[in-house]
Amino acid sequence: MTDTYKFLLPENRIPRAWYNIAADLPAPPPPVLHPGTGKPIGPDDLAAIFPMELIKQEVATEREIEIPEPVREIYKLWRPAPLHRAVRLERALDTPARIFYKYEGVSPAGSHKPNTAVAQAFYNREAGIRKLATETGAGQWGSSLAFAGSIFGLEVKVYMVKVSYNQKPYRRALMETYGATCIPSPSMETAAGRAVLAQNPDSNGSLGIAISEAVEIAAQNPDTNYALGSVLNHVALHQTVIGLEAIEQMEMAGFWPDVVIGCAGGGSNFAGIAFPFLGLKLREGKDVRVLAVEPAACPTLTRGSYAYDFGDTAHLTPLMKMHTLGSSFMPPGFHAGGLRYHGMSPLVSHAKELGLIEAKAVHQNPCFEAGLLFARSEGIVPAPESTHAVRAAVDEALAAKAEGKPRTILFNLSGHGHFDMQAYTDYLSGKLEDRDYDAAALQASLDALPQVAAE
Amino acid sequence: MTDTYKFLLPENRIPRAWYNIAADLPAPPPPVLHPGTGKPIGPDDLAAIFPMELIKQEVATEREIEIPEPVREIYKLWRPAPLHRAVRLERALDTPARIFYKYEGVSPAGSHKPNTAVAQAFYNREAGIRKLATETGAGQWGSSLAFAGSIFGLEVKVYMVKVSYNQKPYRRALMETYGATCIPSPSMETAAGRAVLAQNPDSNGSLGIAISEAVEIAAQNPDTNYALGSVLNHVALHQTVIGLEAIEQMEMAGFWPDVVIGCAGGGSNFAGIAFPFLGLKLREGKDVRVLAVEPAACPTLTRGSYAYDFGDTAHLTPLMKMHTLGSSFMPPGFHAGGLRYHGMSPLVSHAKELGLIEAKAVHQNPCFEAGLLFARSEGIVPAPESTHAVRAAVDEALAAKAEGKPRTILFNLSGHGHFDMQAYTDYLSGKLEDRDYDAAALQASLDALPQVAAE
Repeated sequence: MTDTYKFLLPENRIPRAWYNIAADLPAPPPPVLHPGTGKPIGPDDLAAIFPMELIKQEVATEREIEIPEPVREIYKLWRPAPLHRAVRLERALDTPARIFYKYEGVSPAGSHKPNTAVAQAFYNREAGIRKLATETGAGQWGSSLAFAGSIFGLEVKVYMVKVSYNQKPYRRALMETYGATCIPSPSMETAAGRAVLAQNPDSNGSLGIAISEAVEIAAQNPDTNYALGSVLNHVALHQTVIGLEAIEQMEMAGFWPDVVIGCAGGGSNFAGIAFPFLGLKLREGKDVRVLAVEPAACPTLTRGSYAYDFGDTAHLTPLMKMHTLGSSFMPPGFHAGGLRYHGMSPLVSHAKELGLIEAKAVHQNPCFEAGLLFARSEGIVPAPESTHAVRAAVDEALAAKAEGKPRTILFNLSGHGHFDMQAYTDYLSGKLEDRDYDAAALQASLDALPQVAAE
Repeated sequence: MTDTYKFLLPENRIPRAWYNIAADLPAPPPPVLHPGTGKPIGPDDLAAIFPMELIKQEVATEREIEIPEPVREIYKLWRPAPLHRAVRLERALDTPARIFYKYEGVSPAGSHKPNTAVAQAFYNREAGIRKLATETGAGQWGSSLAFAGSIFGLEVKVYMVKVSYNQKPYRRALMETYGATCIPSPSMETAAGRAVLAQNPDSNGSLGIAISEAVEIAAQNPDTNYALGSVLNHVALHQTVIGLEAIEQMEMAGFWPDVVIGCAGGGSNFAGIAFPFLGLKLREGKDVRVLAVEPAACPTLTRGSYAYDFGDTAHLTPLMKMHTLGSSFMPPGFHAGGLRYHGMSPLVSHAKELGLIEAKAVHQNPCFEAGLLFARSEGIVPAPESTHAVRAAVDEALAAKAEGKPRTILFNLSGHGHFDMQAYTDYLSGKLEDRDYDAAALQASLDALPQVAAE
């Protein structure tokens, strides 16, 4: 038994290229469609809101896409991120399993989101863009883009879901500390926001509404682009630095994972850790299970339809084929705000359809139970989103114990929970409810999915 | 020019011994006195509240004190901590200075405090102690001891200054997540607390009062010890891992610092980064300035007397010779709660009297100005306490610019500000006041210092 439980790569091992799983998938992902024509969109359809380099990445088929040096220079502030073996958690569970976790909470914003925020800010600045508009739910993405904007000298405007804006003043303060402007959504600044407020002046907002507002602002202002923190192919691409580093670190540790686990909301942190391992499976036949974990209250991969849908509420975005609960679906309240999204990364969805990944949905109380156990054994308090991955890793370890056989488990600890401590307070005081989604409302939302001509 | 700006040591370079500056000082520090007899205290006087290993460290004269392996194993969760060169801050300041910072915010509790919390919890567990009592102001120490207690299976009870208890529910949540009990101080649980509440039922509390409560509980319960997060020699000792690592990392970077900077409240993070460099100066004649930075509203080193004083309000502690504002001194409100203490580490005070260290006091607005600049250039949002070190580093860099000569600056970034974002919101909205202490009240507090027979 070694006494090394933390696996650190030197700075020069930050990956020089992102990994594009599209190059290795046995079938290409379905095209993105123009909502007006129902035809596949071209680069020009997206040029009003994205820089061309990101549009190219969205449809790229080459396996490796070089990471620009200025992006790698900023990555060096916190990357390579550490990979730990959770020995104290293993002991607490009395399991023969080996549990490893990649820790992305070391970034300045406390989560994996800066991996793509920095890249997106860079490409936009290179394209001469001065301002970025985006949305945020729990605030992890908004604060990450605010950080990246401050580094590259871009103005950042964040439409923050109103309920989070009011409940999470510290997240807002973080964005403002980085120099960004934070606006509660729905707002009177956009037609999309005004339409919602006209119907419901007390609207608490949703990610779908906030996306509509940010896209509208970007579409109407030539000096402003839009940035999205998950779902899209280029976002998943940028996050693959997580898995690429983890592969090297697992080699240092001397173990190959039997299962790789990530929580999944829009799918980017899951894709980030899982796709590089899946690539080795596809190219070299390496055996590995990959498991996406989602909230039972917003079970996109396990209960959604695989269908074309809009990314937002106001239906300003193109149509993407993905697992979706329908853009009008409103999940019941739960604490992992970063997992409250009706859709799922088209690449993750496609991989699921191809049988390459497993998915499971879990309630929040068992997630916080696992998060608390993790905090008390490993010291790091996981973000509410990340507790979903912790829960699944603990369950895998308990299954190994029941079997009496070792198993190597790797999960992505996507962020720390220092901005989300109210969730732990609620859990400790027994106030957290495990609410299920409304099955009838889900069916209605699915019935309202856009009709798309024969694909 | 190299493109490496982060200097990481491998895990096996975590120091194997703490550095004890007492071995190298040209004169021994004055003894600690028994408040009843006025005579130097012996180990037995402290045995009711501290384990013998820590008492021995308090008076140790050997240069190196071995770090127990179980402590190093926990250190590995986040140590060695990174040392960065702040190239983007240098560019923002357009300075010829080279600015380096050691980042202690990577610990699970987000500050340097776990360096000693883990050691203290370990020695107490080894001594058969089941429970620890302590106090906390801003919450960094309380959450660090809670973390360490959870790792070593000790119950931790934290008396939290009431104003912070009410203003910082996230810090409290963090302690509770680690399994600790958090009690607003003054409380009805102790004679010290009841005495304060009898005089002033609305008392907001103070660190001095909270210390009295925790010491009282520890003194009265054989299974309970007391733990202090700063001031004492053994605490400064444990923090020297910061400077010991930094020396190696500055060698990797190829520069020797002209000045080493730390913020100073009780003095432990300052001692942690500064003492190992001072040791090289004392033993090998290496040239280095060391600079302690304190809040202008609580200017212990720059305006306090060097005199024997109590560590707490109820005068339960031994008398220590230190820079002090008097135990009845109440600073005006400011955000760096971790620097709101009337006294200063006796070792730091002694070194100051010996002319080995410089000190300066700064107001909070210029500190947050520097903290904001740091966040927007380097990405990390400093804790309010740490902004004092940032301010002084920026001032050194500006002085180098005015001189037109390079200068190498190293400061300790003792923690991140994710739990203290309200301070940034207040700064950004122009609400932060730079209040001065009440000079008459300070004089009265100094006049009331205990009379100690000829030393």
